[in-house]
Amino acid sequence: MVSTPAFDHAGRIARLRAAMESEGVEAVLLSAGADLSYFTGYAVTSLERPTVAVVRLEHPLVLWVPALEEPRVTVIPDLFELRPWADGEDPIGLVAAELAEVRRLALTDQTWASAVLALQAALPGARFRAAGLLTGSIRMVKDQAELTALRRAGAAADRVVEHLAATRFSQRRERDLAAEIADLLVLEGHQTADFTIVASGPNSASPHHEAGERVMERGDVVVVDFGGRLNGYSSDTTRTFVVGRPSPEVEEVFELVGRAQQAGVEAVRPGVPAESVDRAARAVIEAGGRGDRFLHRTGHGIGLEVHEHPYLVAGNRQALEPGMTFSVEPGVYLPGRFGVRIEDIVTVTSSGVERLNRSPRTPILVD
Amino acid sequence: MVSTPAFDHAGRIARLRAAMESEGVEAVLLSAGADLSYFTGYAVTSLERPTVAVVRLEHPLVLWVPALEEPRVTVIPDLFELRPWADGEDPIGLVAAELAEVRRLALTDQTWASAVLALQAALPGARFRAAGLLTGSIRMVKDQAELTALRRAGAAADRVVEHLAATRFSQRRERDLAAEIADLLVLEGHQTADFTIVASGPNSASPHHEAGERVMERGDVVVVDFGGRLNGYSSDTTRTFVVGRPSPEVEEVFELVGRAQQAGVEAVRPGVPAESVDRAARAVIEAGGRGDRFLHRTGHGIGLEVHEHPYLVAGNRQALEPGMTFSVEPGVYLPGRFGVRIEDIVTVTSSGVERLNRSPRTPILVD
Repeated sequence: MVSTPAFDHAGRIARLRAAMESEGVEAVLLSAGADLSYFTGYAVTSLERPTVAVVRLEHPLVLWVPALEEPRVTVIPDLFELRPWADGEDPIGLVAAELAEVRRLALTDQTWASAVLALQAALPGARFRAAGLLTGSIRMVKDQAELTALRRAGAAADRVVEHLAATRFSQRRERDLAAEIADLLVLEGHQTADFTIVASGPNSASPHHEAGERVMERGDVVVVDFGGRLNGYSSDTTRTFVVGRPSPEVEEVFELVGRAQQAGVEAVRPGVPAESVDRAARAVIEAGGRGDRFLHRTGHGIGLEVHEHPYLVAGNRQALEPGMTFSVEPGVYLPGRFGVRIEDIVTVTSSGVERLNRSPRTPILVD
Repeated sequence: MVSTPAFDHAGRIARLRAAMESEGVEAVLLSAGADLSYFTGYAVTSLERPTVAVVRLEHPLVLWVPALEEPRVTVIPDLFELRPWADGEDPIGLVAAELAEVRRLALTDQTWASAVLALQAALPGARFRAAGLLTGSIRMVKDQAELTALRRAGAAADRVVEHLAATRFSQRRERDLAAEIADLLVLEGHQTADFTIVASGPNSASPHHEAGERVMERGDVVVVDFGGRLNGYSSDTTRTFVVGRPSPEVEEVFELVGRAQQAGVEAVRPGVPAESVDRAARAVIEAGGRGDRFLHRTGHGIGLEVHEHPYLVAGNRQALEPGMTFSVEPGVYLPGRFGVRIEDIVTVTSSGVERLNRSPRTPILVD
């Protein structure tokens, strides 16, 4: 449907099999979503009809699909055998019947509980684990084609910020600006706009505020956090706008969050643990006396999913490697008053870091 | 954010607790999605940070939320205690710690596998089941406020069909028409457009075709299947268009599918098993010699989810009850040539059936 760079699915499956061997996993069941599309190239929305790819070490690769969707499976690697199952059949029973002798399975993290419990009932002797760290540790290191896709998504998001900087905010509802952002993302080449936070005035103190009926006015701080997919890969950027001119306190918080974001980005390089990025950003905000108002981790990996490994959070000792791509997005939130967040996607390079978002990180003043 | 009818969350929880008692379930863990919003009124998109409502028989109701989302939880019933968990904490561990003595748990069907497996590890003495039949059998009988919402969503979808009947199809790409349909749904009052199948020419033989680059032309049959949310409730309708005039064979298939759809709708009344609706529609298509080209079940329940209980499928003996609302959508698909599907949402009344879609079920001729 859209021009996609050629991804090396066979190489990805070889890496998954190597990881399975070293982790002692005999079968990985990849469910609809990012795991499935990363390893097979087949993208489908998961509802109640399971689509499952079964990866085993010495067995043919199998892709189970709902029969009515068989005609749309046009691009999977030749190495998969297609197995349609019909409405009225028991797909989990069919999958399990081929895995009777398997004892150690891993399942895509997002596999539905109903499928997990049915598999466990059908395979009482087997041990199950979440596949997230197995598939996630492969997916989190992006190859050149993926970095190209992520750079394009980031540049498109930056162009949306540029439009917004020339847009009137005052006297408009949050939800109307959110709808405009979604349209702009598509105009700038995204296939879908997936989320558009527009949090104005006191709402900006709510990190995941849902854009609503509030009408923006002069003096508002407005946190704008949005993203979508461009050729399957996600964008995600946050900029904070000020309608009119910032107060001295707003300026002070901007300065603090800007320095924290810079410190987080500067902490990114191969070999350091993921948590050190969080620590670097948090240290700045703590030194500024606002540590208790930084309500979340510093960032998350991004790729086929908008949130994926690695997470930049205290306790994550995962060493950063070139190709890992994630957000750096500290924020300070003052309840009932305002909040400021600044978010760039960055990728780890062989010697340091590259930002995939380059719009201004200073307060963006709008009418 | 949008005007919503008042839903009776306390009554819903009372019904859930009664079902738990009769099924011997001590705790139900409701995860983000339709289960959570139905019983708590709190709607949130599920990513990797779990949001979980815990319903027990003789215990206070608890809602676990990611700390950064606590400020956005503004409308949950007073009966819930809010428990924020912070990034870096182990939310599943926190939830499990309060359930140490519980032995029989049920989990929202869509709960992530990673959460299911972590809960099982934390509560090794407990038995787990999918909550789908427990919550689904309550959710599938709609109350008046829900029926009002579903009627409005259906009427809005019908107005989109009316627009489309006056729209030029030829020389346009499927994906451009799909984008127009999404815009029309929002113009007609939907908050979101969730899916827009535009399957033209030979693509119409693929029931879940993804709208793509194909340019429509005279003589094409075009299956258009779309829906979204209006005040939380889903629309879902399919009409089949013909660009220009239908061939005799296309007319014959339309006539067959139209009769099958009518037979399915006429089979709907309280007390009959769900599968009898499937059987009635399928019998018509089988008698017409096309039984092997009807590739899917006849329908699915609809409400907060676009697919939910009851499913109209062979083997489902669930007796229909007034208030149950579902699609009736037979289709015939001729590979490489064309397909026809006609889908209405209907609701079971005390004496029979009410259609929530009323646009023409005959071929809709467009330029």
